Amino acid sequence: MRVDAARLRASLAEFAQIGATPGGGVTRLALSDADRAVRDLLRRRMEEAGLAVRVDDLGNITGRRPGAESGPAVLMGSHLDTVRQGGKYDGAYGVLGALEVIRTLNDAGVSTQRPIEIVDWTNEEGVRFEPAMIASGAVAGRFARDYVYDRTDREGLRFEDELRRIGYLGEVANRPGPAAAYLELHIEQGPVLEDAGAAVGIVEGIVGITWSEIIVAGHADHAGPSPMGLRRDALAAAAGVIAGIEGLGRETEGAVSTVGRIAAEPNVINTIPGRVVFSTDFRHRDHAVLDDLVERLRTLAATTASERDIEITVERFWTSEPTPFATDVVEAVAAACGDTGVDAMRLWSGAGHDAKYMQDIWPSGMIFARSIAGLSHCEQEYSTPEDLAAGANVLLHAALRLAGPV
Amino acid sequence: MRVDAARLRASLAEFAQIGATPGGGVTRLALSDADRAVRDLLRRRMEEAGLAVRVDDLGNITGRRPGAESGPAVLMGSHLDTVRQGGKYDGAYGVLGALEVIRTLNDAGVSTQRPIEIVDWTNEEGVRFEPAMIASGAVAGRFARDYVYDRTDREGLRFEDELRRIGYLGEVANRPGPAAAYLELHIEQGPVLEDAGAAVGIVEGIVGITWSEIIVAGHADHAGPSPMGLRRDALAAAAGVIAGIEGLGRETEGAVSTVGRIAAEPNVINTIPGRVVFSTDFRHRDHAVLDDLVERLRTLAATTASERDIEITVERFWTSEPTPFATDVVEAVAAACGDTGVDAMRLWSGAGHDAKYMQDIWPSGMIFARSIAGLSHCEQEYSTPEDLAAGANVLLHAALRLAGPV
Repeated sequence: MRVDAARLRASLAEFAQIGATPGGGVTRLALSDADRAVRDLLRRRMEEAGLAVRVDDLGNITGRRPGAESGPAVLMGSHLDTVRQGGKYDGAYGVLGALEVIRTLNDAGVSTQRPIEIVDWTNEEGVRFEPAMIASGAVAGRFARDYVYDRTDREGLRFEDELRRIGYLGEVANRPGPAAAYLELHIEQGPVLEDAGAAVGIVEGIVGITWSEIIVAGHADHAGPSPMGLRRDALAAAAGVIAGIEGLGRETEGAVSTVGRIAAEPNVINTIPGRVVFSTDFRHRDHAVLDDLVERLRTLAATTASERDIEITVERFWTSEPTPFATDVVEAVAAACGDTGVDAMRLWSGAGHDAKYMQDIWPSGMIFARSIAGLSHCEQEYSTPEDLAAGANVLLHAALRLAGPV
Repeated sequence: MRVDAARLRASLAEFAQIGATPGGGVTRLALSDADRAVRDLLRRRMEEAGLAVRVDDLGNITGRRPGAESGPAVLMGSHLDTVRQGGKYDGAYGVLGALEVIRTLNDAGVSTQRPIEIVDWTNEEGVRFEPAMIASGAVAGRFARDYVYDRTDREGLRFEDELRRIGYLGEVANRPGPAAAYLELHIEQGPVLEDAGAAVGIVEGIVGITWSEIIVAGHADHAGPSPMGLRRDALAAAAGVIAGIEGLGRETEGAVSTVGRIAAEPNVINTIPGRVVFSTDFRHRDHAVLDDLVERLRTLAATTASERDIEITVERFWTSEPTPFATDVVEAVAAACGDTGVDAMRLWSGAGHDAKYMQDIWPSGMIFARSIAGLSHCEQEYSTPEDLAAGANVLLHAALRLAGPV
């Protein structure tokens, strides 16, 4: 059994028209008019596929295909909101890939033991309402409903009010699940599959992330009259630490380290910087390795500070724990890759997804499709129709294995 | 013969009251009301010292003490404008030190062969009207008068209009000079004298400066899904170049190198920077060494770019030539150090001063007084009364040597 690649492609193109940007991408912020339009279209397409559609108190839209049994469902989904000037695939691919699975099962007349549900999660991106993945997080019990409802956008508009305005404020009883398994299909958002020549990724988990802020306090001075040996240059010190942070990521198997943000003071051409503040983002699948990376950063900072007679402080201010996916679900995805004969590889997701919170409450897993140059969150985001079909076929067979054909 | 240290100290304190800041410093921007007030006070004190005062078309105030001969004068001076929240000594010390020399000569009844003139240069700092040292530069022929007159401040107010408003728009015939020699007394603005244990510096010249802008163009990506080996991280690349630039300054005798300004894009914690722009300031007394430093920077940039598969461009956009002072004047200053028995050392100025432009047209030299911790352009700027007196005594004896006692 295989999905209809042309139908999937047409479906993605149809949905990408809503919020389409002149540059070939999509802007469809959560709970905007564009979000209402895309939700209306999804509901219509779900109903046409025979799904029983329900909307919950967070705006999550769930469509249900009954199973031979009435127990927990196999849940598949992702999100239809996007960043500003985002791409056509981030999120939409997971929702429409799941819809394509339903259509394929319908066409083949295949029933499953377990019910199958597909879900469109509200506000995954976190661009309009922070934090990201707020609605899946609320379903998983990470966020209280009142907290979600009181989130405001830049204009001060409340999440609950906007949800009601677009007509998608439903009932708590309509939340997705309970689920025997959760599957999320997504484009990779990175270059690993392309680099390895694999069309599909078997995602073993979502890495942990820890963020620190590093403050380098030296001494601002005229660039001219201060000889090199008498300087306490905060930016020269920071440069050494930043190079060292890159080294920490390179030396540590499976880790990445990034300095994304930097600011120097007074930041003028002819003054030695007296103060530099920069950030570090460490990611790894193992919490202990994250701790170790931060410890090594502290050592590096202390050594640099001592050598240069300046102060460097490292404040670790936020951590997201690593989330290994459920073995049964990961192995079902791996087996589905075998079923479909696709070139696949195992990897971890470096970015967060709704599946992170789903794994809190239900056995979860993800499937990645190769993304050209690893681009995402931009209008140039692109995956070939062949790779998109390959990922959807893996979703189909993984869902069949988890839901059990009758 | 020695200056009156207490009178010099009182004079500095009196002038520091005009534009005094709560933090113990001075804000006296060029052609402001505070500048008018301090000019009025200077004129009064000049006249009380028996000087014939004149104001030129650029607002420069010159006071003349006749000599036995009527030929070129020995000119001494500096400036009374300050940066925002500047110190009490930068500029004022050179003007009031010169005034103290006149008072000392008067008290001792000493006449000189050559006339002696003292000058307060307009807008040395360049904070309100760019560029810095605009009025001495105009006297030296670097800037046309119309160019100076049309300079505007942030509010769009013109130099000429502000000069007229404060009542200091004089005649071109009243410019200072012609001068047989120009002497400028100034606090060091750096830590070299303090580090060496010397009270006074014999300044041999003003270093050349060359500025470049470096643009590092890598590729912005999610911090998570991009493995270390597949990144084109502009900030990690920049860090290596910045460390190398510090090395260039350290390896090169008499050179300083500074990266003062940096900006990363998109500058968010969880995105690999795709673009970084930063500046370099190289200083050295020898033009050929400046050229060599820029060449070595270009090589460093090219090597880094090649290793990391990114683009780095180096644009050298501004150079101020090195200015060695006239040997006769430097040796007169050195001899005056011997006359007064002060602990002195020879050094180059790392910062620009009006003496740079004076050297274009008249034999010039400078005298530095030790500055605690090398602080300047801040309210904490401080030199001891003893060191200030020592510098003024060197000015006195250098002026006597150059003007010739009768």
